[in-house]
Amino acid sequence: MISEAAPVTLAALQAGILPRLTGVREEIRRLIEADFPLIAQVNSHLTQMQGKMLRPTLLLLSEGATAGRPDPRSVSLAAVVELIHLATLVHDDAVDHSVLRRGMPTINALFSHQIAVIMGDYLYSRAVIELVRQADLEALQILSRVTNEMTIGEMRQLLAHDPLKFSEEDYDLLVRAKTATLISGACEVGALSASPTERDAMRRFGECAGIAFQIVDDVLDFTGVEADTGKPAGLDLREHKVTLPLIYALPRMSPAQRIQVADLMDDPEPSDAAIAQVVEAVAERGGLEYARTRAQQLCAQAEAALDELHPSPARETLRASLTYVLERRR
Amino acid sequence: MISEAAPVTLAALQAGILPRLTGVREEIRRLIEADFPLIAQVNSHLTQMQGKMLRPTLLLLSEGATAGRPDPRSVSLAAVVELIHLATLVHDDAVDHSVLRRGMPTINALFSHQIAVIMGDYLYSRAVIELVRQADLEALQILSRVTNEMTIGEMRQLLAHDPLKFSEEDYDLLVRAKTATLISGACEVGALSASPTERDAMRRFGECAGIAFQIVDDVLDFTGVEADTGKPAGLDLREHKVTLPLIYALPRMSPAQRIQVADLMDDPEPSDAAIAQVVEAVAERGGLEYARTRAQQLCAQAEAALDELHPSPARETLRASLTYVLERRR
Repeated sequence: MISEAAPVTLAALQAGILPRLTGVREEIRRLIEADFPLIAQVNSHLTQMQGKMLRPTLLLLSEGATAGRPDPRSVSLAAVVELIHLATLVHDDAVDHSVLRRGMPTINALFSHQIAVIMGDYLYSRAVIELVRQADLEALQILSRVTNEMTIGEMRQLLAHDPLKFSEEDYDLLVRAKTATLISGACEVGALSASPTERDAMRRFGECAGIAFQIVDDVLDFTGVEADTGKPAGLDLREHKVTLPLIYALPRMSPAQRIQVADLMDDPEPSDAAIAQVVEAVAERGGLEYARTRAQQLCAQAEAALDELHPSPARETLRASLTYVLERRR
Repeated sequence: MISEAAPVTLAALQAGILPRLTGVREEIRRLIEADFPLIAQVNSHLTQMQGKMLRPTLLLLSEGATAGRPDPRSVSLAAVVELIHLATLVHDDAVDHSVLRRGMPTINALFSHQIAVIMGDYLYSRAVIELVRQADLEALQILSRVTNEMTIGEMRQLLAHDPLKFSEEDYDLLVRAKTATLISGACEVGALSASPTERDAMRRFGECAGIAFQIVDDVLDFTGVEADTGKPAGLDLREHKVTLPLIYALPRMSPAQRIQVADLMDDPEPSDAAIAQVVEAVAERGGLEYARTRAQQLCAQAEAALDELHPSPARETLRASLTYVLERRR
């Protein structure tokens, strides 16, 4: 039972692949390198804004759980996947006018909105160049489809601002397109040299784990502490983003609570007190519990997909990664 | 002598490939198609914002001048090239906060800045998906490099706002990256099945013609009539963009004129009168004449590259396209 397992840290998941993850970081630096001073400056900020490297980790574990031996090209593919993720973050922050990411200023905040738009394009085209250099049409096929789906997810995000019109089904489509597709793509790319059954199992594993990951992210936005998450609590509500806890809780709220939600959504700059009220109402009406249960169900589905693989240490680490997804605090 | 030839219309250049250009338009519509209503809405605006189709035209003429017979895949490749161009325009307009393009409202003006950022990503990833579907690694290699160079061109553009610091060499690098690289890429992709000599000749043809095209664009910004160009005259000056005519004229200006330039560049919203003064000073000090001469020299270089090809009607149309580049009014 995943939900009862002991907390798992990301460091524990990455312990067996540390040298390869170092390789991924070096490869990312190589891929984004530029002569042009302004780009070099942005790059240096981006590499300091070191992420969790979740997608490269899953790609390499997926390879470990399905292939005979590690392929050196997987390190490059893992770097490309992280690069696509980075490009998406840079554009998402520009679109959302976010000022903080992982506790550091975003590119649009530190440089400018214009530079963020151009840098996203720069990073993404570098990722494509590397895939072409590797002549890896299968990876290109998966990752170009994934990138396109993510743009559709971003469009869905723009419309996710009216809690009365945004259903759980809409949320599901949004989360699949925005988050699960790249995590699933990373897992599938890691399994490219495996059998079709294993490849499909890893794709499904990534899809379910990816949705669960985003749901937990959205729960953490309600419950998280800024020191942990690197962003203020209730940020989604502040930005009028409707997520699963609110979708579930809203029809179960008292009339007074619903008015609080409507007022918050109408207020361009809601107060901390207004946000705290809605956070409390969502918790009281079972929104957080419901979202956590959904995430657990999805992780159980992801775990079932792992049964298609032969037993291996990497498979067990992938299993443990589901506990990490559910239990993480940031 | 190109510069003495009679004016050539775009319609005349396209006369021999009209059915294929219709195919390109249909292919673009197919490539960008979306179930998602908001994207479908933007797409419908984009397809109404019909461009000159210069890049597909050059790609198909390049194929005609170098290959034995027309390859049906070239229509798709031409559509992909135009799609990349479109993606770039959508992001450029977002970066520049432009409100008009080809006499029609831009995506950022009509929808929103956010939608423009996402749509650029959407269009570009669709272009990559199509190249991957065709399994055309050579075209992918050229066009991913080109896309990356264009982002560097956009970064250079951001820095092109101080006429005292932006040299002709800077301008040259900017124009190569921003405009010439995709036109050159289109010509090279059209010649992919030709001999290395012919392929290289077409690449150089496109490079020189592309720089000349941009220089003429920049001259038209000084001299053009809004009804022709679809944008107000002096727009570059209004947006504080430094182009070749100003770079050449500035050191030749009187102290009073130079102060006018400095004042205009310092004024966030320069008046029509201030713009008209600088336009006149640039013309008086030979900036327009110098830029036109540079464009003619580049077209002569482009014409010389055509000598590497066997004689053919398509080669003569490519030659005529240089006259179009120089003589066009829009």
